[in-house]
Amino acid sequence: MNGAQALLDTLVASGVDVCFANPGTSEMHFVAALDRVPAMRGVLALFEGVATGAADGYARVAGRPAATLLHLGPGLGNGLANLHNARRAHSPVVNVVGDHATYHKRYDAPLESDIEGLARTVSGWLRTSAGAGQVAADAAEAVAAAFGPPGQVATLVLPADVSWSEAPGGAARPVRPAAVPVAAPAAVEEAAKALRSGQPAAILLGGTALRDRGLVAAARLSEATGAKLLAETFPANLARGAGRPAVERLAYLAEMAVAQLDGVRHLVVAGAKPPVSFFAYPGMASDLVPDGCDVHILADLGQDVPAALEALVDALGASAGGTGAGSAGPTVVPASRPGRPAGALDAQTLAAAVGALLPEGAVVVDEGNTSGLFVAGATAGCPPHDWLTLTGGAIGQGLPVATGAAVAAPDRKVLCLEADGSAMYTLQALWTQAREGLDVTTLVLSNRSYAILNMELSRVGAEAGGPLSRRMLDLSGPDLDFVALATGLGVPAARATTADELVTHLERSLAEPGPALVEAVL
Amino acid sequence: MNGAQALLDTLVASGVDVCFANPGTSEMHFVAALDRVPAMRGVLALFEGVATGAADGYARVAGRPAATLLHLGPGLGNGLANLHNARRAHSPVVNVVGDHATYHKRYDAPLESDIEGLARTVSGWLRTSAGAGQVAADAAEAVAAAFGPPGQVATLVLPADVSWSEAPGGAARPVRPAAVPVAAPAAVEEAAKALRSGQPAAILLGGTALRDRGLVAAARLSEATGAKLLAETFPANLARGAGRPAVERLAYLAEMAVAQLDGVRHLVVAGAKPPVSFFAYPGMASDLVPDGCDVHILADLGQDVPAALEALVDALGASAGGTGAGSAGPTVVPASRPGRPAGALDAQTLAAAVGALLPEGAVVVDEGNTSGLFVAGATAGCPPHDWLTLTGGAIGQGLPVATGAAVAAPDRKVLCLEADGSAMYTLQALWTQAREGLDVTTLVLSNRSYAILNMELSRVGAEAGGPLSRRMLDLSGPDLDFVALATGLGVPAARATTADELVTHLERSLAEPGPALVEAVL
Repeated sequence: MNGAQALLDTLVASGVDVCFANPGTSEMHFVAALDRVPAMRGVLALFEGVATGAADGYARVAGRPAATLLHLGPGLGNGLANLHNARRAHSPVVNVVGDHATYHKRYDAPLESDIEGLARTVSGWLRTSAGAGQVAADAAEAVAAAFGPPGQVATLVLPADVSWSEAPGGAARPVRPAAVPVAAPAAVEEAAKALRSGQPAAILLGGTALRDRGLVAAARLSEATGAKLLAETFPANLARGAGRPAVERLAYLAEMAVAQLDGVRHLVVAGAKPPVSFFAYPGMASDLVPDGCDVHILADLGQDVPAALEALVDALGASAGGTGAGSAGPTVVPASRPGRPAGALDAQTLAAAVGALLPEGAVVVDEGNTSGLFVAGATAGCPPHDWLTLTGGAIGQGLPVATGAAVAAPDRKVLCLEADGSAMYTLQALWTQAREGLDVTTLVLSNRSYAILNMELSRVGAEAGGPLSRRMLDLSGPDLDFVALATGLGVPAARATTADELVTHLERSLAEPGPALVEAVL
Repeated sequence: MNGAQALLDTLVASGVDVCFANPGTSEMHFVAALDRVPAMRGVLALFEGVATGAADGYARVAGRPAATLLHLGPGLGNGLANLHNARRAHSPVVNVVGDHATYHKRYDAPLESDIEGLARTVSGWLRTSAGAGQVAADAAEAVAAAFGPPGQVATLVLPADVSWSEAPGGAARPVRPAAVPVAAPAAVEEAAKALRSGQPAAILLGGTALRDRGLVAAARLSEATGAKLLAETFPANLARGAGRPAVERLAYLAEMAVAQLDGVRHLVVAGAKPPVSFFAYPGMASDLVPDGCDVHILADLGQDVPAALEALVDALGASAGGTGAGSAGPTVVPASRPGRPAGALDAQTLAAAVGALLPEGAVVVDEGNTSGLFVAGATAGCPPHDWLTLTGGAIGQGLPVATGAAVAAPDRKVLCLEADGSAMYTLQALWTQAREGLDVTTLVLSNRSYAILNMELSRVGAEAGGPLSRRMLDLSGPDLDFVALATGLGVPAARATTADELVTHLERSLAEPGPALVEAVL
């Protein structure tokens, strides 16, 4: 077999059996090998940012990596923004980037560029495979490296001749990912002491702490000690809804985050980083930890964060019969939904429509930005669901992440809340959803503006924008027609201009399998 | 004034008065300053690859740089592929990338990344501005650096606090670009000797040699010495059409390029690089210079290539009364056009339709790939026009380059030949064309396939693709509907399924000002 087949066989043996691809000439042997390794599912993307974002979404839901297949430096460049988001989500991704044949590179052909230089900016592990005899072992290592902990982007650069040359050793044995270490007893003790102090405390949760096990432990801690529970601003995958403990997300706006943290004397951090402002603003601090507040790192993302939270529960004797709702478990969110809205369509009726209709077990991919502000509140008591956010701030993540999430969970409905401006970065994802028949409903929040930038224009202290600057943040003239765009990409679509229409279209889309798009004109 | 205004004033004073922008929060002061510097035209793109490709197209037609405005590392990442193409086109570009405030970077906020690491891969000049007091001088240097020679991408990283802080010095004086040096007399003499040798010779032209002055000189050389004239495979801007000297482009397919160069004993290279294969193929050489052929570099792109060709004309006494068509000038292409095609629509009737209708002075942006194979031949005798190609091989260049070309030349028609697969990388360019009312006709060559990869799949020696690999190169299921997509982006569009329909739609689009799209279903 050739190197490409040895690589694919190794990936499959290592549990990586989906590849989001946008290939070119240098990857043709990899593509040809798909016919010999049918256990690997190739999913074509029309743009590399779709492939990398889908790999991120897949990893967040499946808990294991997919592979990508990108074409040389420019293909990697097109995929970088969503690899940046995957890096911030700590998603395991096996990022395969084709390269010229090893002997061809010195000729500086038109597509030659510094692939490793680009890949280094997003990758926790990076290797250019040196030959067909090594590529299988490289692939096995890449998979293990992707798992971390914490999860990371592992980039394997694949020269064309490594793919096409004979690989006598064939596939390689999988490499066992590194064990996830437990937190140091001293860190648990320090946190316990802080929470016992009687001073105002908060627990900031991130990463794996935001799944059921971590949330239950954290809720017990909160109930036993009165500590406030906070989630990092942009979680990779937050478990929420009725029957689960509630956790308040730290606000994106620094002013609001400061208010949330006001008066806190001890901040216990589990699977997150101490809070900092998303952007800098003139005259505002970047560090959001209040003056006089001590930060206690219980466990970082390279450690078993839920286990550390449970150890802290034990240290505080908060496991059962504590001050909480009894030994059966901590207080959880009661089931509740808003009624179906009617009348005018605005950010609040839009949120109510989503809250009224969100199906149990849904994966919500949230790139709704300003117009999506009220959706989290309106869905808090919906049946249990997961919430995937824009971890790295590189917009154009929602549609691709929804695509990958749907590949990972074919039995669940994916709802993608997508702002109009953000949608336009990676709209090509809709075509992949159509081709693969993925069960994704995309709700476009169409306010015809980079509304967040209109807000930021004032927040950064720039003078009130004149007509020339306002025009750079305005998405009208011409209006984007998302129904036409979705139709052009093979996804059925409808437009809602009232809350009633939105309920009708959203209900139908959520009831029917397969991709659909609803444009909500706000 | 603040740093942002000092920067904009300096750019305008340096002759840079267009900025293709996709801004974010860290660029809000730059955006706000547009109202105070109205001589700078801000052109909004919905995706960064549109902004960078437009800056490339602008530079190729205007001969001077535009600025870009990109948002942090992910924004730069999205723009890298077309910056790669601009680098290969030697286009001057002032690439402005916003960054976090200098004091904010150490907090590793979600959007923090290694901007310089990314920028280095495409930039000939790179600087992070250190303060508002320096940014104006940095901008003046960036403009001069962009001019080269040869033209290059000059990246100026602009921290948010550099933009918003007071810049007491105001704008900076423009920096004069470096002079373009002339070729060494020894290089001219060596080339003259080679062309006098009587042995089979060819002259390979690239870059500035492919405008009128260089072509006329090269044609005289060819007529005086019998040397074959060849142009580099992917020129940035080739002057062609009736009344201009003919030059044959070196083929993309290495097999065909080998045939074009067969038997050549002396290859004189002017403004190009010695030819290499675009990709490597098993068992084929990367270097396309025939065995036993001597390469003579007359002038590289850092030199005045047309002047070097004229010096060579003088050295050979070929200036007038040579063997050519008399002292009035060299032989030129006679005017001729194909008739309007009728009947079935295929690659040949499509080419004939373009040849029958191409207007004088048109700028043709060619990302037509396989289906565009016959268009160059069918337009060879059309009225004079310019031909802009995919210099760096990073697809998704056509629509953005056409956008920038139209901004640079509002009095000329831009015709963009765009393959369907390639169109999907940067389709958002259509929206900018609509908003700015740009005079671009986009002709989508819709064969519903990555046809070039189907060809490459065989050429690289991969076995005949099975169904799983073929599916990765197939763009049907669902078919892309470019009429719907264009409509969604605000550009009027029509579909042609016969040659007659294509003639009708293309003629109307070319006659009317403003953007339009015609989808040719092949």
